Amino acid sequence: MAISAPIAVLDSGLGGLTVVKALRREMPHEDILYFGDTARVPYGSKSGVTVTGYVRQIIQYLKGFGPKHIVIACNTATALSMSTLRAEFKELSISGVIEPGAKAAAAAAGSKRFPVIGVIATEATIRSKAYEYALARRRHHARLLFRPTPLLVPIIEEGRGEEDPLVVLAVQQYLNPMIKNGLDALLLGCTHYPMIKGLIARIVGPDVAVIDSADQCAEDVYRRLLSGGLLRGDSTRPGRMHCFVTDETPRFGMLAQRFLGVEMLSPTWVSPEELYRSSDEGFSLYKG
Amino acid sequence: MAISAPIAVLDSGLGGLTVVKALRREMPHEDILYFGDTARVPYGSKSGVTVTGYVRQIIQYLKGFGPKHIVIACNTATALSMSTLRAEFKELSISGVIEPGAKAAAAAAGSKRFPVIGVIATEATIRSKAYEYALARRRHHARLLFRPTPLLVPIIEEGRGEEDPLVVLAVQQYLNPMIKNGLDALLLGCTHYPMIKGLIARIVGPDVAVIDSADQCAEDVYRRLLSGGLLRGDSTRPGRMHCFVTDETPRFGMLAQRFLGVEMLSPTWVSPEELYRSSDEGFSLYKG
Repeated sequence: MAISAPIAVLDSGLGGLTVVKALRREMPHEDILYFGDTARVPYGSKSGVTVTGYVRQIIQYLKGFGPKHIVIACNTATALSMSTLRAEFKELSISGVIEPGAKAAAAAAGSKRFPVIGVIATEATIRSKAYEYALARRRHHARLLFRPTPLLVPIIEEGRGEEDPLVVLAVQQYLNPMIKNGLDALLLGCTHYPMIKGLIARIVGPDVAVIDSADQCAEDVYRRLLSGGLLRGDSTRPGRMHCFVTDETPRFGMLAQRFLGVEMLSPTWVSPEELYRSSDEGFSLYKG
Repeated sequence: MAISAPIAVLDSGLGGLTVVKALRREMPHEDILYFGDTARVPYGSKSGVTVTGYVRQIIQYLKGFGPKHIVIACNTATALSMSTLRAEFKELSISGVIEPGAKAAAAAAGSKRFPVIGVIATEATIRSKAYEYALARRRHHARLLFRPTPLLVPIIEEGRGEEDPLVVLAVQQYLNPMIKNGLDALLLGCTHYPMIKGLIARIVGPDVAVIDSADQCAEDVYRRLLSGGLLRGDSTRPGRMHCFVTDETPRFGMLAQRFLGVEMLSPTWVSPEELYRSSDEGFSLYKG
């Protein structure tokens, strides 16, 4: 695999750009391809069969660019499809957001024998039990609390700030039952949530470690590339970035700017139709 | 066209079941086919090209059942795609939710020379200006106020009740600026919103007419079938109902029950892949 190959990052929509932001901070010389499935977003309320089918098409498409690594920068997609698709695409190096997040949360819960770890995420991520397995394997004495928080993504995508009373109320409603149970660490199990990390940290208080799966995922990718000798470390050229989306909407510019922190060039539109077509095996969305 | 043929109803997801509920109340002997595009829901944040492509596939699919009428029971789909698809499917009778809702709101705004009419809907519906044209044509002296209310669908789909402080706060935040402008009528421009009509009516107060596009749409379908001699009026057999969805999720039962008011039998799963295949012209999702 070429050191000069790009890192490919995929997400249900634009939330995965928080992972790209962390990747660029960690590895400023890497080229990044970002794929946002904006025509079929969100994944968090959909089934494993459907989400796996969508992610399979996207990986198939990204494979054409010869990436040195593929990051599934979406908790739902990682939870529902990563193990299946890693087995199908054995020739590719693929990682996700769940394991790095769980590892950091397990460590951050401290030295207590029976720590309390909370996870907030989409309905589908929680239903999949992916975080439950990943955390229990590392801290089998931990008490684990899970809460689907389906309003946080639309709240963040509407552009509301952390001072908006509705945002404060939503976060309080979701987290108060967890806080009452004596939380030690809280894992933000959705790549949108770092956008309101300040508010969440304020509500849980200073004694609770708040773990951001976007940051952890970027560190994990860095370690993988480093150990594989694939880091573009000595380059002086800043990394380039290109974005693909399945739907172009007026929201794109505003959201991309908010998640990425810098303005982004116009994305390339890849219709779902093109994804069906570009698949090696013709119609391969549903295998199972 | 056969009187015994079914009425087909399509929506981005399950919100259109509020229209089905109204249709069944109005015409209890009609057979109804419902199609919910749950694999690609929501439409309200997506582009006209994408939404028109999705609705084209669904109409193509429903056409195979020889329906006597097709109802686009989704404001976004009506706003973005109905005129295009009516022109493409000239052989079919197709109606939507925008015109009936606008007609009722224009009438309900009363005898004032300069009435104030508010519309709440998805971002895409408002951006399309479909309600703006439909209302201005009927009441060109009216002052029209539009407000995208993207949180209301996820709030309703989460199963929150009208007493939940977060629901009350969201409705107040969205409606207060309109109320201050002296609203005469408020149009609920999304088929989900009738689920919180009681709360909305309480917040706008008794002097504001609240118009439900689901109810108006059902009445409009009744009048169309009546004038075409297509009503199954003399039957004693209760109408049957069958539901198709593009994704099966655990949410289905809970949401269907809430929107329809009765329990619904298991739906038939039609994958997006099957929609691509069943299209007459092979890949015809994107024409423009």
